Amino acid sequence: MKSATETDSQTPWLDSIKWNEDGLVPVITQDYLSGRVLTHAWLNNEALGLAQTEGRAVYWSRSRAKLWRKGEESGHGQVIKELRLDCDNDVIVMQIEQLGGIACHTGRESCFYRVLDSGEWKIVDAVIKDPKDIYQ
Amino acid sequence: MKSATETDSQTPWLDSIKWNEDGLVPVITQDYLSGRVLTHAWLNNEALGLAQTEGRAVYWSRSRAKLWRKGEESGHGQVIKELRLDCDNDVIVMQIEQLGGIACHTGRESCFYRVLDSGEWKIVDAVIKDPKDIYQ
Repeated sequence: MKSATETDSQTPWLDSIKWNEDGLVPVITQDYLSGRVLTHAWLNNEALGLAQTEGRAVYWSRSRAKLWRKGEESGHGQVIKELRLDCDNDVIVMQIEQLGGIACHTGRESCFYRVLDSGEWKIVDAVIKDPKDIYQ
Repeated sequence: MKSATETDSQTPWLDSIKWNEDGLVPVITQDYLSGRVLTHAWLNNEALGLAQTEGRAVYWSRSRAKLWRKGEESGHGQVIKELRLDCDNDVIVMQIEQLGGIACHTGRESCFYRVLDSGEWKIVDAVIKDPKDIYQ
């Protein structure tokens, strides 16, 4: 097995990223047309390399401890339009086209469907498709 | 000194947040007019409570291990327009008005000023104000 340095030797853009102690960086996924923030997830070196190569969102699932090709179960994949890196080299913004218009496992467009209003997190976005019809 | 539970007893919206093992959650800060993602930072219970009370961005600086009122040095504060919480209760999106139009310590509008292009992170956004004129 190659060392991380050898594996990444052809990808200086990946080598420049400052992975955290778990080898991860946060990724903010944003609809490339509306600008809406859809999800916040995590990437490791392999996931980001695959995402760039495949042109679609591939994340590292911390809860399942494995690569997660967004849409592999739901069909709601994300086609990458642009990748940006922040000033500290440790956060990615991924501009994407959201297939099916649903990014959240609750069947909503975005995971950020609750707004703080009068001391409560109030749901302000509708469910587009029932999750039980998405994950069959 | 009160325990966290006692401190939060009047703020169920704060109590519902799932802080990580360090007592933090990520916060994505977005320009409320353009939708541009400006920064990715961190909040603890106290920072988020103060941000909500004061109506302006207050973060937890991991590198300095203290509260960080955005703009206290640069003058580029952020006026909160909306707070959103994600489906897992562990990420915040903060819609803000960016005073001075500069969120990044490099003097740019956004921290995400580099785009992956032909295997390189290329700077695509101009410096609006020289940092040495910001941090005097």
